Amino acid sequence: MAKYDALREEACAANLEIPRLSLAILTWGNVSAFDPALGVFAIKPSGLEYPQLTPDSMVVVDLDGKVVEGSLRPSSDTKTHQVLYREFDGIRGVCHTHSPHAVAWAQARRSIPCLGTTHADQTAGEVPCTAMISAEALAKDYELGTGELIVGTFKGRKPLEVPMVIVAGHGPFTWGKGAMAAVQYAAALEELAKMAILTYQVNPASAPLPEYVMRKHYERKHGKAAYYGQVK
Amino acid sequence: MAKYDALREEACAANLEIPRLSLAILTWGNVSAFDPALGVFAIKPSGLEYPQLTPDSMVVVDLDGKVVEGSLRPSSDTKTHQVLYREFDGIRGVCHTHSPHAVAWAQARRSIPCLGTTHADQTAGEVPCTAMISAEALAKDYELGTGELIVGTFKGRKPLEVPMVIVAGHGPFTWGKGAMAAVQYAAALEELAKMAILTYQVNPASAPLPEYVMRKHYERKHGKAAYYGQVK
Amino acid sequence: MAKYDALREEACAANLEIPRLSLAILTWGNVSAFDPALGVFAIKPSGLEYPQLTPDSMVVVDLDGKVVEGSLRPSSDTKTHQVLYREFDGIRGVCHTHSPHAVAWAQARRSIPCLGTTHADQTAGEVPCTAMISAEALAKDYELGTGELIVGTFKGRKPLEVPMVIVAGHGPFTWGKGAMAAVQYAAALEELAKMAILTYQVNPASAPLPEYVMRKHYERKHGKAAYYGQVK
Amino acid sequence: MAKYDALREEACAANLEIPRLSLAILTWGNVSAFDPALGVFAIKPSGLEYPQLTPDSMVVVDLDGKVVEGSLRPSSDTKTHQVLYREFDGIRGVCHTHSPHAVAWAQARRSIPCLGTTHADQTAGEVPCTAMISAEALAKDYELGTGELIVGTFKGRKPLEVPMVIVAGHGPFTWGKGAMAAVQYAAALEELAKMAILTYQVNPASAPLPEYVMRKHYERKHGKAAYYGQVK
Repeated sequence: MAKYDALREEACAANLEIPRLSLAILTWGNVSAFDPALGVFAIKPSGLEYPQLTPDSMVVVDLDGKVVEGSLRPSSDTKTHQVLYREFDGIRGVCHTHSPHAVAWAQARRSIPCLGTTHADQTAGEVPCTAMISAEALAKDYELGTGELIVGTFKGRKPLEVPMVIVAGHGPFTWGKGAMAAVQYAAALEELAKMAILTYQVNPASAPLPEYVMRKHYERKHGKAAYYGQVK
Repeated sequence: MAKYDALREEACAANLEIPRLSLAILTWGNVSAFDPALGVFAIKPSGLEYPQLTPDSMVVVDLDGKVVEGSLRPSSDTKTHQVLYREFDGIRGVCHTHSPHAVAWAQARRSIPCLGTTHADQTAGEVPCTAMISAEALAKDYELGTGELIVGTFKGRKPLEVPMVIVAGHGPFTWGKGAMAAVQYAAALEELAKMAILTYQVNPASAPLPEYVMRKHYERKHGKAAYYGQVK
Repeated sequence: MAKYDALREEACAANLEIPRLSLAILTWGNVSAFDPALGVFAIKPSGLEYPQLTPDSMVVVDLDGKVVEGSLRPSSDTKTHQVLYREFDGIRGVCHTHSPHAVAWAQARRSIPCLGTTHADQTAGEVPCTAMISAEALAKDYELGTGELIVGTFKGRKPLEVPMVIVAGHGPFTWGKGAMAAVQYAAALEELAKMAILTYQVNPASAPLPEYVMRKHYERKHGKAAYYGQVK
Repeated sequence: MAKYDALREEACAANLEIPRLSLAILTWGNVSAFDPALGVFAIKPSGLEYPQLTPDSMVVVDLDGKVVEGSLRPSSDTKTHQVLYREFDGIRGVCHTHSPHAVAWAQARRSIPCLGTTHADQTAGEVPCTAMISAEALAKDYELGTGELIVGTFKGRKPLEVPMVIVAGHGPFTWGKGAMAAVQYAAALEELAKMAILTYQVNPASAPLPEYVMRKHYERKHGKAAYYGQVK
């Protein structure tokens, strides 16, 4: 049991950030933490309210979707997490929420243009919106198909440089180098989704941020010569 | 007195969720809990603020609107609850709030289209808006008439599959298999009402969710082979 | 000193509701409590933050604007309160805030139409917006002039039936049978101002509530045969 | 060490206001406190979350950008603060946030017109928006260039009479006679940015506040004969 303790603790702590950061009401969001050495991830159990969550209640699942440890049923979105861990090199946390402004872009089926530095601090370009899942993919395996839809959208993109996506008609998925990073990207995405809506209210003809500002902001936080944050 | 203890406790706990979930300011919302075996429901007393509520302050009313137990006057909306319990098979909780985004759709007199999976997780189609109550129905008995207006709107709909309605010019009513389910549907309705407004701000031509996605999301949570949540 | 204790306590408790109900940030709102028998009102001191307020810090002022008790300077809006107490029969509390949605209507210089029952529960018609204060009235005495502007707008209206106004370019004033009623009307006004903006977002052609529904809702709460709330 | 204690305490207390006033999520805002006699300012360390901040963690920097005291890396925006202290006479606090409504105006690249008294209470005219930073200035030194862009925008304006600016594509900077004043102006700016968006939703043709009202409100709070607040 001790084998997965750290992973379950990381997943639990990150799930508790969802209500604290106002990213979902009721039970509408989940985070997982992945350990590539162990080949498993720990994820929120399905349908439980956040105050009920404990590290012990997290469900440990392998990359074939088999429950390795835990007595509860894992999140209904588990297979989507699974596909992302299998396909996106280097990610160790995935988060899915129904935060309202990110969902608005998903329901409008639009990518979020990079309108300012708040956005560029997360990713140097648009937050892509997937196509609507096809009836065929949905019929075969909905959650697996959602994962594959995201992966298809990321052809030519580097997942760690664009740590977020909008799934058409559905909502946001975010990821990062850990579960806490994933949920913080979910908070950042909700905020920039909100700012983008407000920006177009002020000026419907608002232009994207110039490429040179976008690149600078991204690089000062994430580039090789980054000088944001503390030296690790 | 012990006879109605559980019902009064259920109603009180669900009413306390209204301010906790930010569904109403001041005294603007009420929930009731129904026991079909006893033929009565417990409801919030009229005009009391939420912090004052205790199980003992709940008012127990029968399906003819007679107060069976309790020293306070029941919610002014009591007769609407009464009609819903009489007409909608299987419901055991009703909630009414003035949450702002749901009220906006009510005041705009529009049904809320199903634009995404957050909505489809609650009901597989629009949240219907009633017609405006007629002067005749209002003159006869306003609250009874409001209940009948809802029932009329639900001809051909299954109340447990569409657990929410928008009353034109007024606001939302929701219901479910218990009082807590009813208030959680009220929270879900407020959130999807908000998301729908934001969606049209992003793209005024946003299309409803395809039928196959809508059906899938509803079924995975509420269908016979549902796999959301834990096995009960 | 004991003479004004109750009044200062009432005013202090009502002022503390302003931040609790999210009606103003920083120091941007004030409430007063009036005692017609004593001919004085107690009001928030100017520029103090809410957590600093105590009953002792309230300033007692008479209807000529003379400070009767208290060592601090009264709210800069004191003369507006004074005019309202002098001119509006039966009111014993006045509240002024800069709550954002009510201010939006003020800055847009528009009366708020009665679009639904949430509004009709407060007043059976529009919330009137004053004209912009004239340069002459402003030069003479700005705060007194603001009071007179409100009084002029209420020619033909009964203040206790329309317990709220929007001052053009400025913000809301509300009043009632006590200081707590005044601040609760301020909360109600902010909520219905928000709902009205959202309603027009859903449907820019939204129509006002029919007169018969408006009248019914107002009467069931405030009329002679009111049945909302408890028997006093 | 005791030399900078007061400054570090002032800076820390003001930084803690950022999350308390909901001006930034995660780590997205910073405040500094300046002592002209000592020629240094204390500023938030880069990338730290607010609950981690202590007076000891503040970084003390001189007007050439040299760290004088502190073991952590200062905010990535430090050079912008530095330019403002060097160029704007009399300011002793600077605040930068990514509050969403102020950012919306920045991303829309529009100055905020003075639409009402809430705005005029802060400054008697528009909140100016800078031009977009040039590729040249950015390449030379981005944060220094941002400071110079602000200074250029303020040619002909008095910084203590217009204590706020919108940097195009980026977000708000505010300043004042101390760090706490700077962060309170950031809260005021976010609120008036929000009110302005809402005002145009109510009436897209809303006109600015007449000059005589604007001037009066500013003067009653900040003029020589100001009567807002307590006598100091």
